[in-house]
Amino acid sequence: MINIKENEKLNVMNHSCAHLLAQAVKHLYPDALFWVGPVIEDGFYYDIDLNGRTLTIDDLEPIEKEMKKLVKDGKRIYREELSREEALEKFKNDPYKIDLINNMSDDTVISCYTQGDFTDLCRGPHVDSLKELKNFKLLKVSGAYWKNDANNHMLQRIYGICFDTPEALAKHLQELEEAKERDHRKIGKDLGIFMTHDLVGKGLPMYLPNGYIIWEELENYIKNKEKKLGYKHVLTPPLGNVELYKTSGHWEHYQENMFPKMEVEGEEFVLRPMNCPHHMMIYANEIHSYRDLPIRIGEIARDCRFEASGALKGIERVRTFCQNDSHIFVTPEQIKSEFSQVVNLILDVYQELNITDYRFELSLRDKNDKVKYHPDDAMWDNAEDTLRKVLNDLGIEYVEKIGEAAFYGPKLDVQVKPAVGGEYTLSTCQLDFCLPAKFNLSYIAPDGSKKTPVVLHRAIFGSIDRFMAYYLEETKGILPLWLAPVQVNIIPVNNENHLAYAENLQTQLRDLNFRTNLDDREEKLGYRVRESVVKKIPLAVIIGQKEIENNLVSYRKYGSEETITVTIPEFIKFLEDLRASKK
Amino acid sequence: MINIKENEKLNVMNHSCAHLLAQAVKHLYPDALFWVGPVIEDGFYYDIDLNGRTLTIDDLEPIEKEMKKLVKDGKRIYREELSREEALEKFKNDPYKIDLINNMSDDTVISCYTQGDFTDLCRGPHVDSLKELKNFKLLKVSGAYWKNDANNHMLQRIYGICFDTPEALAKHLQELEEAKERDHRKIGKDLGIFMTHDLVGKGLPMYLPNGYIIWEELENYIKNKEKKLGYKHVLTPPLGNVELYKTSGHWEHYQENMFPKMEVEGEEFVLRPMNCPHHMMIYANEIHSYRDLPIRIGEIARDCRFEASGALKGIERVRTFCQNDSHIFVTPEQIKSEFSQVVNLILDVYQELNITDYRFELSLRDKNDKVKYHPDDAMWDNAEDTLRKVLNDLGIEYVEKIGEAAFYGPKLDVQVKPAVGGEYTLSTCQLDFCLPAKFNLSYIAPDGSKKTPVVLHRAIFGSIDRFMAYYLEETKGILPLWLAPVQVNIIPVNNENHLAYAENLQTQLRDLNFRTNLDDREEKLGYRVRESVVKKIPLAVIIGQKEIENNLVSYRKYGSEETITVTIPEFIKFLEDLRASKK
Repeated sequence: MINIKENEKLNVMNHSCAHLLAQAVKHLYPDALFWVGPVIEDGFYYDIDLNGRTLTIDDLEPIEKEMKKLVKDGKRIYREELSREEALEKFKNDPYKIDLINNMSDDTVISCYTQGDFTDLCRGPHVDSLKELKNFKLLKVSGAYWKNDANNHMLQRIYGICFDTPEALAKHLQELEEAKERDHRKIGKDLGIFMTHDLVGKGLPMYLPNGYIIWEELENYIKNKEKKLGYKHVLTPPLGNVELYKTSGHWEHYQENMFPKMEVEGEEFVLRPMNCPHHMMIYANEIHSYRDLPIRIGEIARDCRFEASGALKGIERVRTFCQNDSHIFVTPEQIKSEFSQVVNLILDVYQELNITDYRFELSLRDKNDKVKYHPDDAMWDNAEDTLRKVLNDLGIEYVEKIGEAAFYGPKLDVQVKPAVGGEYTLSTCQLDFCLPAKFNLSYIAPDGSKKTPVVLHRAIFGSIDRFMAYYLEETKGILPLWLAPVQVNIIPVNNENHLAYAENLQTQLRDLNFRTNLDDREEKLGYRVRESVVKKIPLAVIIGQKEIENNLVSYRKYGSEETITVTIPEFIKFLEDLRASKK
Repeated sequence: MINIKENEKLNVMNHSCAHLLAQAVKHLYPDALFWVGPVIEDGFYYDIDLNGRTLTIDDLEPIEKEMKKLVKDGKRIYREELSREEALEKFKNDPYKIDLINNMSDDTVISCYTQGDFTDLCRGPHVDSLKELKNFKLLKVSGAYWKNDANNHMLQRIYGICFDTPEALAKHLQELEEAKERDHRKIGKDLGIFMTHDLVGKGLPMYLPNGYIIWEELENYIKNKEKKLGYKHVLTPPLGNVELYKTSGHWEHYQENMFPKMEVEGEEFVLRPMNCPHHMMIYANEIHSYRDLPIRIGEIARDCRFEASGALKGIERVRTFCQNDSHIFVTPEQIKSEFSQVVNLILDVYQELNITDYRFELSLRDKNDKVKYHPDDAMWDNAEDTLRKVLNDLGIEYVEKIGEAAFYGPKLDVQVKPAVGGEYTLSTCQLDFCLPAKFNLSYIAPDGSKKTPVVLHRAIFGSIDRFMAYYLEETKGILPLWLAPVQVNIIPVNNENHLAYAENLQTQLRDLNFRTNLDDREEKLGYRVRESVVKKIPLAVIIGQKEIENNLVSYRKYGSEETITVTIPEFIKFLEDLRASKK
């Protein structure tokens, strides 16, 4: 979807539309006072003091009507510049604008914009006339604390969007509808995948049986991939002694993202935001020779981070999650081959799971920033060149982000865009030249000397939670067979004559580890077939007289109107191939 | 092993042996002062003030020597009774004994026992002569705070044991050796199963690659068993809002076993000691009809509990663990069949995993305790009779423990005994008539009314952690094929001629999901075969000329000296059968 804020023309238009909204609100609610009305990525909003009133979505229609009237009337918009004194005098009855003026620096040019009977303090620019604002839509209303501070009183925030053509608006509204349908929070609720509840705690989703089936499949899938590549999996606790995070540096640099510490018998514990330190300690538990490297330690690792409640979102952004994490310990000479193996694993998984809408970002250091980046230029140059070379050799398109590297080394991120909200990182591979030294890790080099290994932090699924959110949105909840909580829905036309055959089929499929449902409710066939579609079950099997007499199965794939009739062995073969294909 | 404290004769003998120890110490360390020397389950100890000296195991030999001399000399032991004044006068130079006397109640008969040049304040009784104490052994020495209070100074605690015959002593010492070998902490270290480290945190073991292989097998084994019985698995977070535990009552009644709370954005979180409340919330997420019951919610659930550091022990007693937990929601009428299903599952698992050394305890209420047990006599009687009837029908032997039921209902526990330390509960099934009401859970009964379900809390493995500890001890680390981290160790006689064949065999076995190791190190064959035994790998396969020429495999089972030669298909069949048998 288009980013309104970054489009010059639409930015101005939306800004003017916020004024239009305010004017209409003032007409309908003469005691209304206005705080600020900025342009955002998705359009604009205005925070309004309605003297204690709370608006609902139904209140937006009359406001839209008034706005349309004003557009038709088509007043021109005038700019006027004021001295501080003039401005304070002009807005003397409006405490919000006074507050804004008082917080402006002395050299700010103070200006206001007027359209008919409405004047607003504003930097501009604006369109010339209200006539240009024909194609708008108010989207929602919510409460918002004044200055976003929960200690302040609540204002009403009305959101809207404005386009230059009716087609562009219509297209956008349709995309919004689709995004709503594609939002993993809606899919997750509709399909019984996860639930949240404030009594359990904000940001702590619980996976319901259908969700855990998907989780298990994803977990086993990625662990099996990793096992074949020589990863060794471990299991470490979701908390640690604070000293562990002092050793790693997280306590100093990452504490704002951590839960508060807990004191027990004089020992201080903290929920871990990352599991790197635990894996460092596992490496340190044995003496290693260069012959043992690379050592690939993997874990579906439970981590906990503090996220502001306002940032929480379904299973995408949460306070506890399980990373598909690994730490790979290598010699400097092995960086290239190992980085290459990781990138190939990412590509392999994406290709197999049909993920196509992503982009690579290579984050490098800023050579001039000697504070953030530890100053070993040779090492950095060598590492960055190695990563570049691997990507180029693999023919991967990527964007270089100078100064975006972590302080400990360069990294590759794979960025994806969710149905609603901003882009995030799905997969990552980060080189680390610092952490192994902090834990005094070493290996015996061929010459018998002790050397420090380099670590690759990598995650393919990111977290299983976030990957599931992404995959639900990508597939709109229409999961491929291998992930579907119920894979085959068996519907006997009537129980009296067809149930036994249906049950027999179910037993056969269960023995082959297919997840089945037998819908033997006394409901009409059409109703049950439709419900199978609503539940997004990949295959509906209908068992009637014809099937039983000829030992057949009739099935319908989700999204298809075609009914296909085959023998039972053919059906099983078809199911097994479909499951294995992951499509 | 025999409980010394509970055996009248050995109890007296060990008590006298503590005096004998003290007399010998006094001879060797004339400035020594003595606190108390009680009899314990495993023998006796004496806490001694050695004027700042720290003893090591090597210091015990001269003490034993002196004790033997005293036994040979064979002084008689005399009892003497004293008035409080006489006692205070007699021990006026011994602050420890003065402290003991001052803490005796007025009606205590104060007595002391004398053997040659040594007198100790003591209640007795004792043996008549030191001659009777021939068969003793000092076992270990450690520091111990005076009065077990960490604020006090440290004393030296010497442990020992005494028997009536040399045979009994020898047998006991051998059992101790075996227990040491069988201790899961030793096996866990030797086989790379888990590690602990104070920097990670006390009571927070980390599973190493070998340990996680066992974990995965156990987790999948029990989940598959449960799936076949209709359990639905979920995944819930290891923490919750404090309000959740106020609702459940844990905050009021179980807080001393919980980690301290964490405040985040004004919301209070706490690591969960149990996951029942999470599962209650999942049940409450939907409306249920009696037709939906029983609903069996299962989870390999991460919990965290505060345990005193002194009580921590390997992976048996820890501060975080994963329960093999389930909550089964039933109508009162379904208690019997569901409880029966749980007991059968326990028996099935124990039989399949060859667990034989356990006993059942049925914990019932104390009818007179109207404070602890909520006073619905009809309900209790009915529930207790139901559980009894199921056990009797299944022909299970059990002990009834009156007054040991939880306040919320009766329970069945399966008790086992570890290599070292006291008995604990491996499996449990607890009826709960209270928690569902606290969460306002309900189902629609056939008559349309709302009824409250009963909950069965049950765990088969208890926690995976504790089960693993138990199973390592039961098997002495000689794991059955299905659990062994490396199942087949392939050893080519020499690499030049036999490696290719060995590699080919490895590939074949890997494709069938067997965990193999190829020991192609340039070491002698005998050395490599011996190491395979040290690592307790179930099967060592030796590949030489004869095998290659005839397309054969020669293998040796752990613990057997016999080498068996078979064709590759025969070997694979043997492996698959062995894996499936779980033996």
